Amino acid sequence: MSHGAPTMAAAIRFGLIGSGFMGRAHSIALHSVAATFGADYAVDCVVLADTTAERARDAAPSLGFARSTGNWRELIADPKIDVVDICTPNHLHAEMALAAIAAGKHVYCEKPLALDVEESAAVVEAAKRAGICNAIGFNYICNPMVQAAREMIQAGEVGEVVAFSGHYVEDYMCDPRTPFTWRCERRLAGAGALADLGSHLINMAHVLLGPISRVNGVVRTVHKERSETATGKVRTVENEDLANALVEFESGVPGTLHISRVAAGYKCGLTVQVVGTRGTLEFNQERMNELRLYRTDDATGRRGFRTILAGPEHPDYGAFCPAPGHGLGINDLKVIEVRNLLRAIRTGTPASPDFAEGLRVQRVMTAIELAAASGGWVSTR
Amino acid sequence: MSHGAPTMAAAIRFGLIGSGFMGRAHSIALHSVAATFGADYAVDCVVLADTTAERARDAAPSLGFARSTGNWRELIADPKIDVVDICTPNHLHAEMALAAIAAGKHVYCEKPLALDVEESAAVVEAAKRAGICNAIGFNYICNPMVQAAREMIQAGEVGEVVAFSGHYVEDYMCDPRTPFTWRCERRLAGAGALADLGSHLINMAHVLLGPISRVNGVVRTVHKERSETATGKVRTVENEDLANALVEFESGVPGTLHISRVAAGYKCGLTVQVVGTRGTLEFNQERMNELRLYRTDDATGRRGFRTILAGPEHPDYGAFCPAPGHGLGINDLKVIEVRNLLRAIRTGTPASPDFAEGLRVQRVMTAIELAAASGGWVSTR
Amino acid sequence: MSHGAPTMAAAIRFGLIGSGFMGRAHSIALHSVAATFGADYAVDCVVLADTTAERARDAAPSLGFARSTGNWRELIADPKIDVVDICTPNHLHAEMALAAIAAGKHVYCEKPLALDVEESAAVVEAAKRAGICNAIGFNYICNPMVQAAREMIQAGEVGEVVAFSGHYVEDYMCDPRTPFTWRCERRLAGAGALADLGSHLINMAHVLLGPISRVNGVVRTVHKERSETATGKVRTVENEDLANALVEFESGVPGTLHISRVAAGYKCGLTVQVVGTRGTLEFNQERMNELRLYRTDDATGRRGFRTILAGPEHPDYGAFCPAPGHGLGINDLKVIEVRNLLRAIRTGTPASPDFAEGLRVQRVMTAIELAAASGGWVSTR
Amino acid sequence: MSHGAPTMAAAIRFGLIGSGFMGRAHSIALHSVAATFGADYAVDCVVLADTTAERARDAAPSLGFARSTGNWRELIADPKIDVVDICTPNHLHAEMALAAIAAGKHVYCEKPLALDVEESAAVVEAAKRAGICNAIGFNYICNPMVQAAREMIQAGEVGEVVAFSGHYVEDYMCDPRTPFTWRCERRLAGAGALADLGSHLINMAHVLLGPISRVNGVVRTVHKERSETATGKVRTVENEDLANALVEFESGVPGTLHISRVAAGYKCGLTVQVVGTRGTLEFNQERMNELRLYRTDDATGRRGFRTILAGPEHPDYGAFCPAPGHGLGINDLKVIEVRNLLRAIRTGTPASPDFAEGLRVQRVMTAIELAAASGGWVSTR
Repeated sequence: MSHGAPTMAAAIRFGLIGSGFMGRAHSIALHSVAATFGADYAVDCVVLADTTAERARDAAPSLGFARSTGNWRELIADPKIDVVDICTPNHLHAEMALAAIAAGKHVYCEKPLALDVEESAAVVEAAKRAGICNAIGFNYICNPMVQAAREMIQAGEVGEVVAFSGHYVEDYMCDPRTPFTWRCERRLAGAGALADLGSHLINMAHVLLGPISRVNGVVRTVHKERSETATGKVRTVENEDLANALVEFESGVPGTLHISRVAAGYKCGLTVQVVGTRGTLEFNQERMNELRLYRTDDATGRRGFRTILAGPEHPDYGAFCPAPGHGLGINDLKVIEVRNLLRAIRTGTPASPDFAEGLRVQRVMTAIELAAASGGWVSTR
Repeated sequence: MSHGAPTMAAAIRFGLIGSGFMGRAHSIALHSVAATFGADYAVDCVVLADTTAERARDAAPSLGFARSTGNWRELIADPKIDVVDICTPNHLHAEMALAAIAAGKHVYCEKPLALDVEESAAVVEAAKRAGICNAIGFNYICNPMVQAAREMIQAGEVGEVVAFSGHYVEDYMCDPRTPFTWRCERRLAGAGALADLGSHLINMAHVLLGPISRVNGVVRTVHKERSETATGKVRTVENEDLANALVEFESGVPGTLHISRVAAGYKCGLTVQVVGTRGTLEFNQERMNELRLYRTDDATGRRGFRTILAGPEHPDYGAFCPAPGHGLGINDLKVIEVRNLLRAIRTGTPASPDFAEGLRVQRVMTAIELAAASGGWVSTR
Repeated sequence: MSHGAPTMAAAIRFGLIGSGFMGRAHSIALHSVAATFGADYAVDCVVLADTTAERARDAAPSLGFARSTGNWRELIADPKIDVVDICTPNHLHAEMALAAIAAGKHVYCEKPLALDVEESAAVVEAAKRAGICNAIGFNYICNPMVQAAREMIQAGEVGEVVAFSGHYVEDYMCDPRTPFTWRCERRLAGAGALADLGSHLINMAHVLLGPISRVNGVVRTVHKERSETATGKVRTVENEDLANALVEFESGVPGTLHISRVAAGYKCGLTVQVVGTRGTLEFNQERMNELRLYRTDDATGRRGFRTILAGPEHPDYGAFCPAPGHGLGINDLKVIEVRNLLRAIRTGTPASPDFAEGLRVQRVMTAIELAAASGGWVSTR
Repeated sequence: MSHGAPTMAAAIRFGLIGSGFMGRAHSIALHSVAATFGADYAVDCVVLADTTAERARDAAPSLGFARSTGNWRELIADPKIDVVDICTPNHLHAEMALAAIAAGKHVYCEKPLALDVEESAAVVEAAKRAGICNAIGFNYICNPMVQAAREMIQAGEVGEVVAFSGHYVEDYMCDPRTPFTWRCERRLAGAGALADLGSHLINMAHVLLGPISRVNGVVRTVHKERSETATGKVRTVENEDLANALVEFESGVPGTLHISRVAAGYKCGLTVQVVGTRGTLEFNQERMNELRLYRTDDATGRRGFRTILAGPEHPDYGAFCPAPGHGLGINDLKVIEVRNLLRAIRTGTPASPDFAEGLRVQRVMTAIELAAASGGWVSTR
């Protein structure tokens, strides 16, 4: 009987901050990535940090971390950690990322990178100077079908792109009785639907069509007041429930964005439509294993949108399942995201998406808010 | 054996100008309306006019008109005609409508009412002074499922409306080799996609949510030149292939419009999404017998968009078929539209939609063009 | 101004028996067919018959018939009638058809042709001897998308057919409180779901794959008793609510049929799936303007079911509308069916589907009932 | 900083046989289950066995096993193993399971349990006598939406069930050029499509409606010969490509099954339709995060199939993701399956599905083959 595999590359060692929803999703991905993508992507889950030592200690066994701590700065200082993985509330992202960068660690940060452009730019600048690997959690673009869509666009399979339309709508705050939380507070969340949902949509637009150069838009807080659960106190919601925008890409292509957290019935309604001169692509995250493709060069009377099911012929799917159409899930996208980071670390190349993309997305969000205030077009530069 | 039915109301007598696509659709509707909606809606197809006497004479037998003429002014002057039905090229609508109004006839005019706001306003004003019945061919809103959607919205079944998103995209000009036609010429067509498709979308938005009060937008001519079939001459396209707009309804609700005649794969992609505080409605003309409804008050774990199939429990469907889900078609919508006009004539009440709505729609289209030029918001007043 | 069109072929003269649901649908079609398919298909609606003179006289104006009668034998004897159109309750079909044939009239009969094989065979034999044109109302196969499917199959576009699966399920009797009607009585309706729905499915299977040669099956009466509305009397339902069958086509292809009138949620759930060695076709009457096609020879990673929207490139669609995707309805299928009959009369060729197909379908239905009784395979010969 | 969690239950120790497709899927699940469902489900991946020591040693690091061996009997004998997990070719399942049972281990076996009824019965009997925990890999029924469907049926939400229709069709052998493999050989695979796909469909039918008591059916080998890749030798396919069956459940409900491995276009076409007196459920594995529900008691004009998206309000979903509609994947179903086994071990209760269900499914498969041979009904007892 044989033990281990002595010749393989050493596992990359992770410290994870935050054991909530995203911390758990990251843990699952860290434990799955080697079995999915091979031993080159072996990960060692070393330390878990949370707000208190007790909370971290309680979560460590199920999340599969060897040690735990109630002090995230201790985690960052730990010499046995290669990567700091930040899954904390949004307003802490920048501070922690800057500390990890200062300690020379690679950094994997959930979106958003920070709460505004200035802070985001500072993190990007620090990461660049330190030369560390950095990655941001825009998981939707890791989907094999989104990757396939990008390949099709870049290969000209839909001709020259002439229009983009994107929606990201959910309904988690559509009920006016849904309480006031940190999500409603600008100091803790930054923007509202724009930050939580719009950031993903803008990132996907960037991935598919390249950078957005200018925007015009509207933001709206539909439910202007909400009550705090604990106190019953009625508070003013400080950020938007929905945002509509006209955009123009650097390529000159016009587009529309529709973003809402108060859209009854939509649970993950991230849909994009890319129209080209010879075809069209449609994607909907609620049917994440499908991509719809129309080609003008199909035979007359036989043209129609094809519903392509994800399979091993699409990027990264085969690592999860050799059989087509069996379906990936949201947590599998995180495994691909982690693999992207590990590959960047192994090869010394930039991860994608990285902090710089986090900053570009933040600039578009901010421009939409400025446009909404001014009623006119605003550049994203 | 019994002959006829001597006691019923006299049939309403129609003169139809134009034997092309729309003329044929109107003819089918005129011949079907009584069998569908009952003998009160009996129609007599009296005279057909076209550009030449020969063309009109050739078309009359199949279209089922007793007489024909090559002179539309003769038709309008005919004392045996109650209604003048205008199915000619767009640039002739206003002139013919004004002549018919002057002759005291009721007027049924295909959209658009005219090529610009001024001309449209003149027709509306003339019709109002003459006191004649008038109707415009916005057939999509006659759909039982669109009528049902309006009823649901007005009854508060989706709560208070908070957002609107509408697309009307087709692909009939997506191929750059599609020739230059009258549709590309401002003098003959007015606006491009905005007039041909956008007008229907704006009308539907009005019907569902009330008037649009201001807009911001973009227009784009994707294929800037096209060749004339006959001459091979390359000509500059004079109107837009696509238009994107941010809109605000009088109610304060924000919305987006996306309109295109170059959207590969879409054949009648008129889709609207109406989001309310307690539910959402989705309609897509390509699946015109379906309405999707989400209700937040369905039981937990049992909520989802319902795909409601058109049936006799929805407005006007039962006149066509007593069995649900068997399906109406686009020509059936014209039968409903004709019934609306006939009912207005019989009862002396305004038809819906009428010329005034044609003008309101024209004002929104024009405001979008102005906004696109200025980069800022423009009122529809 | 010109009158009529003296040189065209004389209109074909119809006498219609029955002014109910189907009588109305036939009337609409008779009035629309010339405007849709051209003056060669002009129809003259001469006499309407119903059970009483009063009922016929009341319906004649809206249905657009010149004369009316309470005696169907008088209609059949009328020398000014070319075609007898039978839209009466099922148990009267055979008697009327035989009388019309005896009078030398062409006969257009709603399905079923008769209530059993013997009676059907007698009608077919009489029609054959008389040499008259005959047509039966299997309207679903007139759908442009079903015609297109047949063309694709016959052209080998899905390779060699290897399997068929068909459902025709509706829910009009799923509620046990739905009353006992003529549909539940063998003397008036013949079989139950098999006759009402199954006949259409079997006909469509025949059209797409050729004749069914043997069957095995199950029939079931789910709700064994129902109450009469008028009397409240509880009566035993005399025919089946659902039928499942294994079938084998003459070609050797195996198939399954699932037929039900108690399938909650389905309104016109006529779906077929035809699997071939190089592709698959799916059709669903509830989305009657769509045909789904999968082709194995599409490029790797780009394969998927195409949703083809009905358009002028498919058989007969263009006669209704020059624009694709705008949608036909169930009543339009009747117009095609009438055109088929008129064309047969004009050209002296057999209509399709004709009475002989009505008999073939009846043989399959009867074989399924026999197989259900015996538990083994039964030939359709 | 704290180490581990000394007070929790000891991890359950796994030995896995087979490092191919299913071995990898099981590994991912074993590594993810604690982070997903909590520390009670901690697993220790101890030994990996494969056909050679080298193959096992190479796979161990990525699959995350501490040790490896080329001798599966050594793994079974290992005192540090609690569970033997069998992911080998089908014909080895029974032998390995019997050996593991004899060694007193719990056994987790991929489907099928064995190649025929006799062998399956022997394994079930041995497991019962030994009193060990056993589980079989029917993963599709672990889907939250399938669990929800069962709950709805059992709670009477669709009334009394009156009909079942199920398909499981894929296209992995639809191309006649697909080579002859072990799947085509009765000695190695047992039945063909029935065993590979039909077993899952029968299991799902059992879970939703209870046991199938008798069947009638057809089997067909569409492509009767295939060539071996290595030798080019043409060999006769020894099992069926498709099977159609009529079934009757113990409850008396009739159903149909359609099973095929040559159905072009379907990648995981496992669809079921359960019709009740007050509603209907539809599930399709290709859209595994959706369940369609029709309720007859929705309001008139508002009824329609609801597309319910999987969310934390459905069984087990919330352990993967707190947000609805974000989507699970096929590998997540394995995590639920593993949790089921671990829970059974922890609590000393039977796992579900267990070997006994594997035997019941085998009996139905065999009965369909017998019915196809005899042309009549066959009991599953």
